[in-house]
Amino acid sequence: MQLITVGTVAFDSIETPFGKADRVVGGAATFISLAASHYVKKMGLVSVVGDDFPKSMLDELRVRGVDLLGLEVLKGKESFYWSGKYHYDMNTRDTLETRLNVLLELDPKLPEAYRSAPYVMLGNLDPKVQLKVIEQMEVQPALVVLDTMNFWMDSAMPALREVISRVDILTINDAEARQLSGEHSLVKAANKILAMGPKYLVVKKGEHGALLFGEDRVFFAPALPLEDIIDPTGAGDTFAGGFIGYLAHTQDHSFDNLKRAIITGSALASFACEKFGTERLLTLTRDEIDERIRQFVDLVDFDIELVEE
Amino acid sequence: MQLITVGTVAFDSIETPFGKADRVVGGAATFISLAASHYVKKMGLVSVVGDDFPKSMLDELRVRGVDLLGLEVLKGKESFYWSGKYHYDMNTRDTLETRLNVLLELDPKLPEAYRSAPYVMLGNLDPKVQLKVIEQMEVQPALVVLDTMNFWMDSAMPALREVISRVDILTINDAEARQLSGEHSLVKAANKILAMGPKYLVVKKGEHGALLFGEDRVFFAPALPLEDIIDPTGAGDTFAGGFIGYLAHTQDHSFDNLKRAIITGSALASFACEKFGTERLLTLTRDEIDERIRQFVDLVDFDIELVEE
Repeated sequence: MQLITVGTVAFDSIETPFGKADRVVGGAATFISLAASHYVKKMGLVSVVGDDFPKSMLDELRVRGVDLLGLEVLKGKESFYWSGKYHYDMNTRDTLETRLNVLLELDPKLPEAYRSAPYVMLGNLDPKVQLKVIEQMEVQPALVVLDTMNFWMDSAMPALREVISRVDILTINDAEARQLSGEHSLVKAANKILAMGPKYLVVKKGEHGALLFGEDRVFFAPALPLEDIIDPTGAGDTFAGGFIGYLAHTQDHSFDNLKRAIITGSALASFACEKFGTERLLTLTRDEIDERIRQFVDLVDFDIELVEE
Repeated sequence: MQLITVGTVAFDSIETPFGKADRVVGGAATFISLAASHYVKKMGLVSVVGDDFPKSMLDELRVRGVDLLGLEVLKGKESFYWSGKYHYDMNTRDTLETRLNVLLELDPKLPEAYRSAPYVMLGNLDPKVQLKVIEQMEVQPALVVLDTMNFWMDSAMPALREVISRVDILTINDAEARQLSGEHSLVKAANKILAMGPKYLVVKKGEHGALLFGEDRVFFAPALPLEDIIDPTGAGDTFAGGFIGYLAHTQDHSFDNLKRAIITGSALASFACEKFGTERLLTLTRDEIDERIRQFVDLVDFDIELVEE
């Protein structure tokens, strides 16, 4: 295995100002795996679903090189379910309902082949479960990336701090970076968070792009202005999948290559917003991704010569 | 005159989560002129103040090449006064008090030397006053840039639409672009706004940077992540001043040069936030600006080669 991912595999019901979708397939590990599959050919997925989860979606994952030995299917149980409603600005949302269902029973046992994977993606999930995955690795991974959210900062901070101290890269959004650090300035927030353990911090800002902090450097990646944003659900996970997929493919963890990984993740995330759930990712091709990466290059490209006084 | 600017010259009282300043000098035309003075040596300023306005500040402007023949000083009257309080995120604010004072009597009469200026900056102000400035130009300017805000969209839309139809470039923030167009997607908003007349639209997003739309192209300029944001008041005006100052200096209105003007404006705006009011701009040097422009280049610089499958 080149990459293993732990995270939810779930159903989502989503309402936006522009439409709604009922019980579509979602979940952090689903989006991450679909995105990473464009760069990594042998991946493992660690999660749990009920037997209500569609076999067709499992086949979609398998066909993309995602090994499902790590995915428990619990008979007679229901998969994790989340429903939410986006505000008009599409940057904020309210959770309408969360049914943890099988997620309560997720006690990951990594298949043998997963325990020496060089790349580990800890998708948004209970930090205690993320910790169990780290602890089962038999070979120190080349790179561990952690995604989390404010919910765990509110409810499970000690475990979260423990996971944060053991990963190489943390990805969170700007409000979460402020909450985790207690600092309003993102520069100060980044310094405090990097002191907690990770070598790099990626601050995701949705339609406003992303920032990379580390090695006393900063990089600002744009988001592509989209004609239509249909559904931002899973965009952050898709970003993470493209990000770690690119790094696993190139096996280069320098700051300059992390920039490229962020551009790749941003390009993938922009597709995720174009349709509800995973729909757009299921038809996405590498040519489309490459074309969009070229648009990102154009979007921020400028040359400036300092003019004479 | 190379550039004339119309806008407020005022006193501001500002409260932020991190401090406060009472009756400091502010106003759109003040910030614009101070910023543009790094690139333009002969400027005119069109505005009105009371005789409570400090002579020392007028001297600061004069010494930077700002001609004040267009600035009326009304005896026994008070200058425009605004006070506001920023929210914790520093991106939004409430107006606590507005005393229009002399602004009610602003009926601009352009001095002869102003009427053939090639560059015109219409700072945020009643669109009827902005129109009067345009109408007094005897030679068609090479470039007219308009800045405005939601207040005028709410209260003076017909006059505002008239001004918008007569300028080359409009600068507004993202919420205002959505309000003006009735479109949530900034891409769609930009298309509608460009159909109203301007050739280019600059969408200012504060700490999230700025977007340039026009010629069916898009450019995304970052904002520099700052260690401390003391006071964002005047940042948008300072941006506009750096933007039009750079264009007036280079006399090149191509898309590629507009990008450079945006980077220059963004660099200047980042300084404006470092202290209350105009304080930081009064000590700012061209070397400091050039150094910060280099930081912007580093901030977004990346190279990406599309990797093999």
